[in-house]
Amino acid sequence: MKNYLFAPGPTPIPTETLLTMALPIDYHRTGESAELLGNVTAKLKYVFQTKNDVMILTSSGTGAMEATITNILSSNDRVTVIRSGKFGERWGEICEAYGIQFDPIDIEWGRSVDPQQVEDRLNQYPETKAVLATLCETSTGALHDIKTLGEILQKHDALLVVDAVSALCADDLQMDNWGVDAVVSCSHKGLMTPPGIGLVSLSDQAWKSAQSSDLPKFYFDLRQAQDTGHRGSTPYTPAITFIKALDQALDRIQKEQIENVLERHAHLASATKCAVKAMGLKLFAQEPANTLTSICLPNRIDGQVLLKTMRNRYGITYAGGQGKLKGQILRIAHLGWVCEHDIIVAISALERGLAEIGYNSTSGVGLAAAQEVFRNN
Amino acid sequence: MKNYLFAPGPTPIPTETLLTMALPIDYHRTGESAELLGNVTAKLKYVFQTKNDVMILTSSGTGAMEATITNILSSNDRVTVIRSGKFGERWGEICEAYGIQFDPIDIEWGRSVDPQQVEDRLNQYPETKAVLATLCETSTGALHDIKTLGEILQKHDALLVVDAVSALCADDLQMDNWGVDAVVSCSHKGLMTPPGIGLVSLSDQAWKSAQSSDLPKFYFDLRQAQDTGHRGSTPYTPAITFIKALDQALDRIQKEQIENVLERHAHLASATKCAVKAMGLKLFAQEPANTLTSICLPNRIDGQVLLKTMRNRYGITYAGGQGKLKGQILRIAHLGWVCEHDIIVAISALERGLAEIGYNSTSGVGLAAAQEVFRNN
Repeated sequence: MKNYLFAPGPTPIPTETLLTMALPIDYHRTGESAELLGNVTAKLKYVFQTKNDVMILTSSGTGAMEATITNILSSNDRVTVIRSGKFGERWGEICEAYGIQFDPIDIEWGRSVDPQQVEDRLNQYPETKAVLATLCETSTGALHDIKTLGEILQKHDALLVVDAVSALCADDLQMDNWGVDAVVSCSHKGLMTPPGIGLVSLSDQAWKSAQSSDLPKFYFDLRQAQDTGHRGSTPYTPAITFIKALDQALDRIQKEQIENVLERHAHLASATKCAVKAMGLKLFAQEPANTLTSICLPNRIDGQVLLKTMRNRYGITYAGGQGKLKGQILRIAHLGWVCEHDIIVAISALERGLAEIGYNSTSGVGLAAAQEVFRNN
Repeated sequence: MKNYLFAPGPTPIPTETLLTMALPIDYHRTGESAELLGNVTAKLKYVFQTKNDVMILTSSGTGAMEATITNILSSNDRVTVIRSGKFGERWGEICEAYGIQFDPIDIEWGRSVDPQQVEDRLNQYPETKAVLATLCETSTGALHDIKTLGEILQKHDALLVVDAVSALCADDLQMDNWGVDAVVSCSHKGLMTPPGIGLVSLSDQAWKSAQSSDLPKFYFDLRQAQDTGHRGSTPYTPAITFIKALDQALDRIQKEQIENVLERHAHLASATKCAVKAMGLKLFAQEPANTLTSICLPNRIDGQVLLKTMRNRYGITYAGGQGKLKGQILRIAHLGWVCEHDIIVAISALERGLAEIGYNSTSGVGLAAAQEVFRNN
């Protein structure tokens, strides 16, 4: 069976990128490897839209989230955590693990934070050291308005920390222009590389805060990562295979140009949304991201059964609901190495799979809606 | 130029293993991935020579070292650290980062610990919670007698924690038989897979200690890793590409059988040692490991120049000295996917490279010595 991957990470990897990983492995302490690391860092800065360094860690995105917390915060800091899904909750869990006091702003899953809530919270607790936010809450598909949060935080002393693990390259995030102090991401979403590389970029203000951080860290010490990075190296043996693959994938992004990559994701998201609405389905997120589209499943449809049907009969991997949304929503990622034809496949299979387990829409109604978006582009 | 890798990690990767990484990426939350993880874990237990779980982390070996410390120790614990090189020092650095009091046993670089010193230390500080040891100190090539340490620690309450990052599969380590409480390793040495996977196995006693650990951790929480591992999953997105590659590489080890893999490493180490001695060079380690052979360079030879010459003119990557040994020693790893012919290449190139920069031995004298070992096998 031909397999198609529409999960929000790992995402499909371009064949040229896959092939770099089948080459004999390189030693990581050579001039060539230093040059590679320098090139990758420069290209990452382009994608992060920043002049700041981007640190390359061997970890998942969660490792990079933890690195951000333990490096820029201290044990007596108070932070605000925006929780609108599983990944917002993760910020809180990491704070908890390190004994950092946090004030959650709890948002109904599927909704996005009202920036005014954040401003109110900062006025209530002016000592707040950082606001921990999420660009796209992957568990719900909701996009948060980081740009406005950045404007609000300009008026306060707090650092703006953004989990862009899933959304980088799919939803715009202008680190420097928007005044973001920490951006966290990873290799296996918009960057079209396997999971195994965590990425962190910090602003000058965040680095300043890192100087006085008293939280314990060793493997994830970002000052070490920055220092060695400036010499084209890493503190510990890096996942050199993935760094080489990432270099190749980043070339693809540079060639397409980040503005066009973002535009493509917006376009594919738009077609997907039109298609599922035409099929009579509701979107789960009130402000949907371009990273993935979350769909409310009709009550009589068991999301777990749908996922299995799609995978076993059609070779299609979507993602289901996480945590309390298990079985209730379907998440279709249109992320990374994805084009219009992939969306046609995703919608065609969705129409068939849903019909098979009891939700009938007119044959082709979703496809026609997607097609209409594509033809009008 | 044809390239040959004789560094102590990453090591050469079998072509079949490389090719698995060029296959389309798998989603990590499926029945197939759960089965893969289960299979890999079972094969790792065989290699670790243990009935305990082996936890698979997305990190380098250092990440796995940190995970071991933060999970089995607590802030008021006192530990003994055997420091005989860069990696023994690393145990101490991690303790320091987490505020754990440690008593170092400092050994001259190139030498191995006298187990009696450890016993004396345990008698001096009976409250010692753990002894942090190294199987092969990669920076010097020295092997430590873990079996005897295990016997000594049976008489005490302390946990025996062993860094087997470089030596797993090359120097014997019988976790269960020898009473080792924690073994740390990684993917890119004897396991013939790229860097990016850290491995930890804990004994029942170590797990018991983990229950009361008060050190902060999140990404490296091994209880989470164990819990999810039992369900064929991981707490966070794993480096699924490398897990698949590791599965392939472990099949190779199972087929050869671990006893034979160890014997092969001993045989290749023996030939290498005979060759360099025949060339009039001295071994740096007093008790050399089978993982790698460290060679004292004659005073007039600059190790950095030698490394560059070998790499640029002969396509051969050795490793040099680390830390205070920079420029003074040469390290030839015979580790992982390495056979007799590779040793012949390594020695041939060494004879030529040394001659080129001013150290002349009779042409072929090293080769003849290696050949003699091989013919008598």
